[in-house]
Amino acid sequence: MDSKTPGLTRLTDAERIGWLRLIRSDNVGPRTFRSLINHFGGANAALERLPDLARRGGAARPGRICSEEDARAEIAAGRKIGVHLVASCEAGYPPRLATLDDAPPLLGVRGALEMLMRPTIAVVGSRNASGAGLKFAGTLSRDLGEAGFVIASGLARGIDQSAHRASIMSGTVAVLAGGHDRVYPPEHEDLLAEIIGSNGAAISEMPMGHVPRARDFPRRNRLISGVALGVVVVEAALRSGSLITARIAAEQGREVFAVPGSPLDPRAAGTNDLIKQGATLTTEASDVIDAVEPIMGRPVELREPDDEPIDFEPEASDRARITSLLGPSPILLDDLIRMAGTSPAVVRAVLLELELAGRLERHGGGLVSLI
Amino acid sequence: MDSKTPGLTRLTDAERIGWLRLIRSDNVGPRTFRSLINHFGGANAALERLPDLARRGGAARPGRICSEEDARAEIAAGRKIGVHLVASCEAGYPPRLATLDDAPPLLGVRGALEMLMRPTIAVVGSRNASGAGLKFAGTLSRDLGEAGFVIASGLARGIDQSAHRASIMSGTVAVLAGGHDRVYPPEHEDLLAEIIGSNGAAISEMPMGHVPRARDFPRRNRLISGVALGVVVVEAALRSGSLITARIAAEQGREVFAVPGSPLDPRAAGTNDLIKQGATLTTEASDVIDAVEPIMGRPVELREPDDEPIDFEPEASDRARITSLLGPSPILLDDLIRMAGTSPAVVRAVLLELELAGRLERHGGGLVSLI
Repeated sequence: MDSKTPGLTRLTDAERIGWLRLIRSDNVGPRTFRSLINHFGGANAALERLPDLARRGGAARPGRICSEEDARAEIAAGRKIGVHLVASCEAGYPPRLATLDDAPPLLGVRGALEMLMRPTIAVVGSRNASGAGLKFAGTLSRDLGEAGFVIASGLARGIDQSAHRASIMSGTVAVLAGGHDRVYPPEHEDLLAEIIGSNGAAISEMPMGHVPRARDFPRRNRLISGVALGVVVVEAALRSGSLITARIAAEQGREVFAVPGSPLDPRAAGTNDLIKQGATLTTEASDVIDAVEPIMGRPVELREPDDEPIDFEPEASDRARITSLLGPSPILLDDLIRMAGTSPAVVRAVLLELELAGRLERHGGGLVSLI
Repeated sequence: MDSKTPGLTRLTDAERIGWLRLIRSDNVGPRTFRSLINHFGGANAALERLPDLARRGGAARPGRICSEEDARAEIAAGRKIGVHLVASCEAGYPPRLATLDDAPPLLGVRGALEMLMRPTIAVVGSRNASGAGLKFAGTLSRDLGEAGFVIASGLARGIDQSAHRASIMSGTVAVLAGGHDRVYPPEHEDLLAEIIGSNGAAISEMPMGHVPRARDFPRRNRLISGVALGVVVVEAALRSGSLITARIAAEQGREVFAVPGSPLDPRAAGTNDLIKQGATLTTEASDVIDAVEPIMGRPVELREPDDEPIDFEPEASDRARITSLLGPSPILLDDLIRMAGTSPAVVRAVLLELELAGRLERHGGGLVSLI
């Protein structure tokens, strides 16, 4: 099973269980998942190798591997409330999300799958938005909805709520930070029910029962921008979560739009700053539509093949030398490969082992460090 | 006397009288003034030729030529309230203004001449500004003043007033649309007195006694941007006078800055639009300073020599043919020269005659039409 051909394949039940077990196992993130499945040919083969790889990476004790029973239980629990697990290689997976390096291998989807196939704009902003900000988010989302766009947002209070409400009739997608049965904030369970009941959808990469923690929100934000052609930030103070979404969106190659405000309004400081950095100043839906229309015409570009060679039988001496080059300060992978004096395939293999042993942290920009 | 060497020459009293008579004569604007003085070697020589040129251009009756007595009277009236007439070739004339094609040949300056030599930022905006807009204009002008910039504005109600008031201590220049003795609005006579009394300045290209008409304000606006490195538009509705200033500023090669506002605030519609068109989004003084600092380092570039050849003895047949090619619809000067089948020098001579006869209108972008 190759993860690089979205929409062209369909997992068997056994494969889906294998995928779920692998991504739910300790120290396996979306990028590691992809390396493993590409090089062992499938999730079940990778699962068999996990303990050995982690041991070679120096794991003090073996990481937890998700059992078949747990995977089946998660799938069953989701089904009860209408959640389907869609794999990144399958039809039904949001096509733009599938292009990301760190796309979730399996996405829990509740509601109208077809909503995820339509051109989407994310609308985000402050939880404690002003009346003007809430009104503008609603007007913009309604206008974009009338123009045929699905609105994605994070189901939060404030701007998110306005954006969802104004696009319930035209189509909206809520991107959750926790499990589908752990809606945050709890008072938005009714809003989510309305979204699902009106042919909208909710998506999450987290297991059922997962209560969202603070660190899950930035992680979730990559999905909000990931499903969209562009992200509109309506109101945002400096150093707010919406600015993280905007930064991630830019890194993902998404268009970033920001709504201006008075310099005397702290809730506009973040959006004004985004415009200074190159975001498109947005006062009406046409500002967004004019910018994304040329992109919509283009076919979705799949991500670069990530099957860089990995040598899964590194020598013990290579492993020792590469590990000794690492420390708590992040170092560029490219520098590490140069300093290691061995093949990139060997370095990648050692890093994967360390990662599975829970000893390696991957930062943005190709930086790695020991934990 | 050559008009192309600002700061290097000083007019004699007789020359100054000649310059004033020429620019105050019918159908002589700054551009025509420059053509005449360049080609006849001085204002008094040009004055002698005016009736003949206008007659050849088909003037029904000779245009009024300003008498020496009237010129002396204007100079004397100005002196009584401290107005000096500074020529565009003289030290004391604002150096950046001198680089414009349509720089006033003589500028009436009242107050501190040295204020016009310092780096200047224009701050303009709505007359019916919001409280936030007025406050921001004041803060920005004070901060720019503290950073060493002189603030230029138009002495109007609203943003202009805030900008002047906040920069009285650091230095401010009021650019008037009427004569120095015809302050508009009249209730700002006290503000102007304060500006002059605090080492500021006022400038005008209009004669003493001239009551500003509606059409004088757009004309005046080119001086506001002309003396400045850049223009900050603080609040402006769509189709407002401040946007005219911004457009002229861009044509003059000045930096344009605009202060953002909520899309729901009509007083921000013009400034948001300016940012969409490329103006620098401005929320604090450093946005302005960072953009103009590199320009300040460069010496002021003098305008291109405008001594394009003019043949002051065109044939009657050339005159007839060129005039017949003209009509009420504006035509490009370059197209006219091509169609005329004669030398550019002859075409320019005929146009100058028509202009002095009050029969030619020059539009922006090199367009001309018959009146």
